[in-house]
Amino acid sequence: MAHADLPTHLDQHQDQGKDEQRAVTQPTQLQKARKRFLKGLSYFAGDMEPFGKWMSKQFILLQILDWVLRGAAQVMFVNNPLSGLIIFGGLILQNYWWALNGFVGTLFATISALILQQNRGAIAAGLYGYNGILVGLLMAVFSNAGDWYWWLLLPNAFMSMMCPIVSSALGSINSRWDLPVFTLPFNILVCLHMVATGHFNHHFPQVLIQPRTELPNITWAEIDVPKLFMSVPVGVGQVYGCDNPWTGGIFIISLFISSPVTCAHAVLGSAVGMVSGLALAAPFGDIYFGLWGYNCVLACIAVGGMFYALTWQVHLLAIVCAFFCAYLGSAIANVMSRFGLPACTWPFCLSALTFLLLTTETKRILKLPLAKVMYPEKNLAYYWKLKKQEKREKAEAEKKEKEEQDRAAKEEMFLNEKEQLRLELERMKESKNRQLEEEKMTDDHISIQVCPPHAAESE
Amino acid sequence: MAHADLPTHLDQHQDQGKDEQRAVTQPTQLQKARKRFLKGLSYFAGDMEPFGKWMSKQFILLQILDWVLRGAAQVMFVNNPLSGLIIFGGLILQNYWWALNGFVGTLFATISALILQQNRGAIAAGLYGYNGILVGLLMAVFSNAGDWYWWLLLPNAFMSMMCPIVSSALGSINSRWDLPVFTLPFNILVCLHMVATGHFNHHFPQVLIQPRTELPNITWAEIDVPKLFMSVPVGVGQVYGCDNPWTGGIFIISLFISSPVTCAHAVLGSAVGMVSGLALAAPFGDIYFGLWGYNCVLACIAVGGMFYALTWQVHLLAIVCAFFCAYLGSAIANVMSRFGLPACTWPFCLSALTFLLLTTETKRILKLPLAKVMYPEKNLAYYWKLKKQEKREKAEAEKKEKEEQDRAAKEEMFLNEKEQLRLELERMKESKNRQLEEEKMTDDHISIQVCPPHAAESE
Amino acid sequence: MAHADLPTHLDQHQDQGKDEQRAVTQPTQLQKARKRFLKGLSYFAGDMEPFGKWMSKQFILLQILDWVLRGAAQVMFVNNPLSGLIIFGGLILQNYWWALNGFVGTLFATISALILQQNRGAIAAGLYGYNGILVGLLMAVFSNAGDWYWWLLLPNAFMSMMCPIVSSALGSINSRWDLPVFTLPFNILVCLHMVATGHFNHHFPQVLIQPRTELPNITWAEIDVPKLFMSVPVGVGQVYGCDNPWTGGIFIISLFISSPVTCAHAVLGSAVGMVSGLALAAPFGDIYFGLWGYNCVLACIAVGGMFYALTWQVHLLAIVCAFFCAYLGSAIANVMSRFGLPACTWPFCLSALTFLLLTTETKRILKLPLAKVMYPEKNLAYYWKLKKQEKREKAEAEKKEKEEQDRAAKEEMFLNEKEQLRLELERMKESKNRQLEEEKMTDDHISIQVCPPHAAESE
Repeated sequence: MAHADLPTHLDQHQDQGKDEQRAVTQPTQLQKARKRFLKGLSYFAGDMEPFGKWMSKQFILLQILDWVLRGAAQVMFVNNPLSGLIIFGGLILQNYWWALNGFVGTLFATISALILQQNRGAIAAGLYGYNGILVGLLMAVFSNAGDWYWWLLLPNAFMSMMCPIVSSALGSINSRWDLPVFTLPFNILVCLHMVATGHFNHHFPQVLIQPRTELPNITWAEIDVPKLFMSVPVGVGQVYGCDNPWTGGIFIISLFISSPVTCAHAVLGSAVGMVSGLALAAPFGDIYFGLWGYNCVLACIAVGGMFYALTWQVHLLAIVCAFFCAYLGSAIANVMSRFGLPACTWPFCLSALTFLLLTTETKRILKLPLAKVMYPEKNLAYYWKLKKQEKREKAEAEKKEKEEQDRAAKEEMFLNEKEQLRLELERMKESKNRQLEEEKMTDDHISIQVCPPHAAESE
Repeated sequence: MAHADLPTHLDQHQDQGKDEQRAVTQPTQLQKARKRFLKGLSYFAGDMEPFGKWMSKQFILLQILDWVLRGAAQVMFVNNPLSGLIIFGGLILQNYWWALNGFVGTLFATISALILQQNRGAIAAGLYGYNGILVGLLMAVFSNAGDWYWWLLLPNAFMSMMCPIVSSALGSINSRWDLPVFTLPFNILVCLHMVATGHFNHHFPQVLIQPRTELPNITWAEIDVPKLFMSVPVGVGQVYGCDNPWTGGIFIISLFISSPVTCAHAVLGSAVGMVSGLALAAPFGDIYFGLWGYNCVLACIAVGGMFYALTWQVHLLAIVCAFFCAYLGSAIANVMSRFGLPACTWPFCLSALTFLLLTTETKRILKLPLAKVMYPEKNLAYYWKLKKQEKREKAEAEKKEKEEQDRAAKEEMFLNEKEQLRLELERMKESKNRQLEEEKMTDDHISIQVCPPHAAESE
Repeated sequence: MAHADLPTHLDQHQDQGKDEQRAVTQPTQLQKARKRFLKGLSYFAGDMEPFGKWMSKQFILLQILDWVLRGAAQVMFVNNPLSGLIIFGGLILQNYWWALNGFVGTLFATISALILQQNRGAIAAGLYGYNGILVGLLMAVFSNAGDWYWWLLLPNAFMSMMCPIVSSALGSINSRWDLPVFTLPFNILVCLHMVATGHFNHHFPQVLIQPRTELPNITWAEIDVPKLFMSVPVGVGQVYGCDNPWTGGIFIISLFISSPVTCAHAVLGSAVGMVSGLALAAPFGDIYFGLWGYNCVLACIAVGGMFYALTWQVHLLAIVCAFFCAYLGSAIANVMSRFGLPACTWPFCLSALTFLLLTTETKRILKLPLAKVMYPEKNLAYYWKLKKQEKREKAEAEKKEKEEQDRAAKEEMFLNEKEQLRLELERMKESKNRQLEEEKMTDDHISIQVCPPHAAESE
């Protein structure tokens, strides 16, 4: 989530440049078609980079709209304005008033980040908007004053504008462990507003949430299987506080457009949450309402390919994290209900942070540096590149070593040959010497002149 | 608050030395008067440095008294024994027993810091006493055993002596982000004592605090405007748990003596808290009682010039922080009441820490390094010095660049002239040569002697 | 607790090697006997290093059994399989079902650490097992479904397997301050399970824990002194959730085998807890039941010689820490009871972490680096070695300085002598000069030739 986009983009462009060069040398029909398809895809899938670039030259109000839409989608770690637009569509389908509050929240959070001169790249990626949309939406959802209570926009705007401050402060702490802030600012600010006013308030009353004080009535015969299956999209919808299954379905589509891996993990997380609810004997109503799903959705997306490079081990870890998150969700909901508060996305934040702080000695679980986090598919490409590079380096090192060995062997052979030649030469010289010495015996005068060079050579 | 005094003092003395030197060169009547006034002021305003220095040579018991008085004032970030004395006066006006407990708390906390061999400079600045006075005072305030229950001095002394331990431990953590510990040790220890014993205790019963369970009765017609205005000084008094407006007024005076900026922000913060209380539909009784003010007072002082250098942007930030703190105050009070606890100064600590962790890309919001934090006026001087230095360096860099350009231009001109001279000379020589050659034609013998020097020169 | 064993072991071996070499040079009868005794002791006391080494070559299942036993003892910071075996004996004496759950917890936690490829040395020291045994035991203790409710093994296994993940995550944070994770993972996971299910649950109901709402009935005449003394071993037993005084006694024996210092501090801590309970007017039942003791036991062990080198100052600090821990224990128990939760060992963790974060300027309170933490006796030996080395270095530095001074003095003396000789020589020359000058008066011709050398010498 909190990643600096620009430098990594440059990297990719250079790589693309190289790829194109290679492609130019041997362009087949298939490669061309594939390239054209990928380019077409990049116009609306992934993080819509070409669109973002084109946008950066437009009028500021249009840019802010782009940032607001990206912010709406960033709740699910998606940096894509088209997904954001579809999500707003889903919100409108759910409730006009909520959608309006969400929009106001995102807008004010983004403007506040601009005023506070936060990092422009992060603002443009919607990283200052996603807490705003959640603050706006959930303050409307949990308000007990009914829809179209216009005064609510006042605390909504104030709390949204506090988002970048809290984000920045938490970022200062989390960056020490290279961790994102997730939706912690939203959790803090919405809980703050709700508990500061409470149910018994004249201006901003909240819905009444109370702890359970008796055994819930659970008869397994009464279970409604279609509703149980419906709880999977509802769980995805509850990320934005929406209980309409169609809205949840629209959200799933918006995820698929940007990143199929994210979409798959979202659905998987929601299903894990539903199963956990049944295992821990939760009231069926809560499960149908998606309350067991939404945290698992987010936790499963975050661990499953977003902040870790997707391998089989990481996929299993994501499922374990979703189970842990469901457990944590029930615990936090029970604790918070004592204060009249909902669980918000605290369970997701805490479980995902725990799993991101994990250190192991295996190489198959690689936590990406925060600055390199894009979306699962691109992260995977980065991981493969890293691995390939490592392999290449290893191969090169091996090759070098082999060459060294070969050269050493050759040299040795050469030296041996040289040595043999030298020995032969010496032998020849010695025989010559002997001859000379023999001659010396006969003629002492000559031997004195001849000897010195031989002496020098034998040294 | 947690700053090492000694090195910075040395810096200032050197600076003063320079200032005096400059002053000696051109002493006008006005400058002399101003200097004398500032010197007189330094005997009782600011951090009373000359007095502190004089004290450091006195008997240890007298020194400890100085440290206790500074500790009493450090609750409001004021390092001034005179302010501390006035504050104790205010406390005595409020309640003798509370004042005694406060004194015992400060004394034991300071002694404990000496035993644990904490930094002597920090002890002398009262940085180990301010949590002690709050612990002592508030344990007396919230005790349900009535005044003059002498057994209370036992846990009071124990908890005060724990202050330096908790301060040191929190300091180890907060120093990673260059943050002070504020009144966190006091919050932790008083809540510890209150919740460990609780309302239903034979030895140390606490006053009963319960959560709100019905709509408070608020009729705007019944609002008492004079009481509302009185709530501003009462809010300042509530920093020490005092509800007497005269005590609050005395505290305001003690702040003004040391630092007018601090005093202004204290009053501003209290007013912001009162307005927030009205906005969030708080019962009027709470507002009149100053419960909405005291956290905002501290937060507004901390952000407004104490840990940030005071600029207009920082002043606005301090007001935003005060509003946020009021919101947080209501939230924390509601949460803590579930455990029978008061909000203490948790809201101030959390909001001020959040705003101190904020990072922006603007230069107008400068967080001072903790070791350089003195009091707002001195901080501002430090900030201006920094800015002036930066400007000077920039100007010098520009000047140097310009000089370089000038020299380069001159050199070029000089080189051009030289070149022209050389060319002329060459032309002259050539003409001479030609003459000589002509002569050579007539006399070969002479030409041989003349040629060599010319050849050397043309090399 | 969380220390890398291998490197330190190597260190010691080298040291032992040196010791043996020294011993070989002068082996007396007494030294031999002492050596043989220490070697015999090392087979079952301390961390049973020879046994651990022998084990590392055995079949993996046998190794895992060793790790599980060490894990059981590591709850009390003891890295000794024999102590672990005795502790399991104590648990069986208390309750078969609890012992089984504890074993399952330790086993699954250790296996999970192996799967997650955690540090092998830490696993072999039982550092991934001790949270597992506590999770297993306490989930059984606080279950309201009665003994032999086999379904409980499912969440038991899941939570135990989460232990290494939470340990690793907390380790990433705490390692920044070189702090161990203590039993925080156990606290987090057991509270998680209990509050996620709660008292009103069909599958996994928990015992009902409720906050106190009236004055407890305390009449000092009814105090039962034998029970009060019995509460000391019961307090030690409550570390594992056992209220049987015999079980507690067995645990004390198991501690004594490994480290008498640890054992003494455990008993001391339990006694301090009991006294604190009386001081804070706790119901006698809670004190008899050991609820005031177990946190103090752990805190007193941790501070008293385990993570600090044992000096008199540290011993006093450990007692203060135990008192603070008792206070904190009462506070946390009251807070947690609002959520139907027990205090677990939160008080121990928080108080010990606070005291380990303490920084002072005295050298008598030395916090050992985490990698060097073994058991109190060995830590003390390390501290003495450090001190001896420091002394030696200081002595050497002094010796060097003295030698330097001597040499300087000698040189000076030598120089003085030289100077005197030179002066004498000069005087002689001068007298000669004067003679010559006198001669010059008579004979100008000669003086011209003689002068120059004299002039050169006077330069």
